[in-house]
Amino acid sequence: MNATLPAHLLPLQPRPVPAAMIDALKSRFGARCTTALAVREQHGRDESPFDVPPPEAVVFAESTEDVAAVVTLAAQHAVPVIPFGVGSSLEGHLLAVQGGVSIDVSRMNKVLRVQAEDLTVTVQPGVTRKQLNDEIRHTGLFFPIDPGADASIGGMAATRASGTNAVRYGTMRENVLALEVVTASGEVIRTGTRAKKSSAGYDLTRLLVGSEGTLGVITEVTLKLYPQPESVSAAVCHFPSIADAVATTIEVIQLGVPIARCELLDANAVRAVNRHDKLTLREAPMLLMEFHGSEAGVREQAEIVQAAATEHGGEHFEWATTPEERSRLWTARHHAYFAALQLKPGCRTVTTDTCVPISRLADCIALAVNEAQAAGLPYYIVGHVGDGNFHIAYLIDPAIPAERELAERLNDQIVHHALKLEGTCTGEHGIGLHKQGFLLDEAGAGAVEMMRVVKRALDPKNILNPGKIFRL
Amino acid sequence: MNATLPAHLLPLQPRPVPAAMIDALKSRFGARCTTALAVREQHGRDESPFDVPPPEAVVFAESTEDVAAVVTLAAQHAVPVIPFGVGSSLEGHLLAVQGGVSIDVSRMNKVLRVQAEDLTVTVQPGVTRKQLNDEIRHTGLFFPIDPGADASIGGMAATRASGTNAVRYGTMRENVLALEVVTASGEVIRTGTRAKKSSAGYDLTRLLVGSEGTLGVITEVTLKLYPQPESVSAAVCHFPSIADAVATTIEVIQLGVPIARCELLDANAVRAVNRHDKLTLREAPMLLMEFHGSEAGVREQAEIVQAAATEHGGEHFEWATTPEERSRLWTARHHAYFAALQLKPGCRTVTTDTCVPISRLADCIALAVNEAQAAGLPYYIVGHVGDGNFHIAYLIDPAIPAERELAERLNDQIVHHALKLEGTCTGEHGIGLHKQGFLLDEAGAGAVEMMRVVKRALDPKNILNPGKIFRL
Repeated sequence: MNATLPAHLLPLQPRPVPAAMIDALKSRFGARCTTALAVREQHGRDESPFDVPPPEAVVFAESTEDVAAVVTLAAQHAVPVIPFGVGSSLEGHLLAVQGGVSIDVSRMNKVLRVQAEDLTVTVQPGVTRKQLNDEIRHTGLFFPIDPGADASIGGMAATRASGTNAVRYGTMRENVLALEVVTASGEVIRTGTRAKKSSAGYDLTRLLVGSEGTLGVITEVTLKLYPQPESVSAAVCHFPSIADAVATTIEVIQLGVPIARCELLDANAVRAVNRHDKLTLREAPMLLMEFHGSEAGVREQAEIVQAAATEHGGEHFEWATTPEERSRLWTARHHAYFAALQLKPGCRTVTTDTCVPISRLADCIALAVNEAQAAGLPYYIVGHVGDGNFHIAYLIDPAIPAERELAERLNDQIVHHALKLEGTCTGEHGIGLHKQGFLLDEAGAGAVEMMRVVKRALDPKNILNPGKIFRL
Repeated sequence: MNATLPAHLLPLQPRPVPAAMIDALKSRFGARCTTALAVREQHGRDESPFDVPPPEAVVFAESTEDVAAVVTLAAQHAVPVIPFGVGSSLEGHLLAVQGGVSIDVSRMNKVLRVQAEDLTVTVQPGVTRKQLNDEIRHTGLFFPIDPGADASIGGMAATRASGTNAVRYGTMRENVLALEVVTASGEVIRTGTRAKKSSAGYDLTRLLVGSEGTLGVITEVTLKLYPQPESVSAAVCHFPSIADAVATTIEVIQLGVPIARCELLDANAVRAVNRHDKLTLREAPMLLMEFHGSEAGVREQAEIVQAAATEHGGEHFEWATTPEERSRLWTARHHAYFAALQLKPGCRTVTTDTCVPISRLADCIALAVNEAQAAGLPYYIVGHVGDGNFHIAYLIDPAIPAERELAERLNDQIVHHALKLEGTCTGEHGIGLHKQGFLLDEAGAGAVEMMRVVKRALDPKNILNPGKIFRL
């Protein structure tokens, strides 16, 4: 059972899908349009802890034309459409808060064009990041953005995702070169080109990346790729305290070390992955790091980092240079979420996602730890700390409203502290339903109104994933 | 004498500034508001070859409140406002094609907050890039974006500028973290935070970067900074042909070498800088490169590049490791434009700015060279070739319309070839007045209409630098 939608997001205005539209969809899509409850329910939720009624229909799109056809019908009938990739969003992005039709793009899963000589690739939105890397491995290139979940590229673009490699390679903001998008009228447009940079008019690509499906449905994504590094090395280092691990990270970033991954796991997270993945990591605050470069370059980076870690009490620096060892560690890191869910059967998580200027990170994490310990709610911390981004996840029983409320209060405190530190309420998960109040606190009424003006102009009938990011 | 505005940009609709507004400006700003012809003329042009009547008044703003006051008055009177930094735009961005008031922000030139521990800085828009680097040098950090001209940071943000260091450090798109902006109603908003990444709603920062003053007037810019590299080394290498220099560049990029600068100068450009800067560089196609990193890292990069260059006939690899030698070379590179202007007294330039996927660069430059030689117009080529971006500049006599028309025809051919190669008509100069037709060809009617819809929504009276990027 999930939690019900927070009161400040009610009342919803349901917008029923007229029978004529369902008929038109069934006539065009046949079995690829379904109103079966199980399918609708699967498409009416994500990894957020909310329960709302599912969409009225789900269409499995197989082409841009399919998507355009659904949106054109939706525009005619003023019905909401919600793009769906793999359902790994965390902030309620996929919930049909006003009803409507879910457009499942998971069958649009072709890697369309690999242009290895230009370090670019063009994919359909349903391609997942692991699939992409499997399909391009033979080229010697890779796509670095790694949010943990095997998310779809379309969904990652829509939420401006990032993850473990962002400290070196940037986020979807930096790595999407061009898009094909179906607009609110059902028209197909292209933004950007395969050129690495451009000053040609408004940056529609960047406007759409992170717009959470509210300005258009992404039907093609052109991405930057990177040469697989000559040498890769991963290391684990344990620290007496989280503060020491964070202090090491801050120093590494300030020194300009081009570290490829710099992940914090607190003792609780290590405990969870030990149990889940049958590892024997020391259950203390830990940095999990990765270095990319030439052999000499990797060695040089590692030496600087090891010196910084030692200065801050780091111990048991352990190296994993074989692909198997590395893969085992990173798999464990990516399992942290599911591993932690198993610590408290039936639980869900409320997860913070603040990101602050690097020098403020220790301050922000310290507050999170102190408050969580005082509150007595089970939690764990993982963080893309090289970017100043961390998550504290509270394990709550969704059947006990008081637990969710407590977690939300803690989240609230951390966000407002992060905003005082000149940070953001969300480094990579997005606003969705959950963080709309925080967005207002962060950006201010004027900037949010500017977003609303853009939304109203580009989607006058408010059919594209309505109710997300802000309410109109 | 400059060329007159191209016919396809006429007729203009002059929008006179009512006497009441001039009175209100003079009453608020005193001598900081002027209608003197010489000042207006200085603010009514940039480095583009067009002549239009100057703005009716110039206001020297000294604060965000000053800018907001001018824009508020302009909104009341539906009068155009044109932000002005140092006037180094190339595409007519600053021209008062509909009259109005120029807002000169050059006195807003304070570096407001250096947060060295976070690698960020916040500046007023009139700070120039050289001033910024002078003022932060003691911190051990630097701001890499370098468009050649000592442009203002506000102007660089407004045109999404880049330049010689972009191949490694990105453009203004990647390096602006946050903005303060005066909107079309005169309201002051802030976009972004000092966090390195964020998924908090629409990316208004990226929407405004590159919007050429048409969506808001930038009054504060927060930028990323970088640690000054431990070691810097520059090298010059000459090649038998431009094609060989470009082939070397393509290989270096495909190998993933993190080269910091990779600039092409053709023999004509070398000749011009030799004469202008009293250098004795060999007058052959040349790559001017710079490597940043640790001592070992720089050596390693240089070895890979030297091997690639040798394979492609590169000769006379010469190193410049002292700051003085490097500075002499880069100063010469930055003088290429002014040096070339001296090759043909009284001339102006028409400059292309295409940027293509790296593997297409040789093809695109070859076409440019062939066509220029066939046309017999004096030209030179410089290029940020590591990004796939180059400029061929035709030296024209502005008094001879046939020369400008010929140059424009050549530009047109190159742009359309670049678009076929999946590139962009402008890598870094912007659309301004000059490239509006190219924008339509590149982005398509649907995407340009999306830009127009955004513009109309955010600036309903069309007062913010009207007539630039597109016509409404």
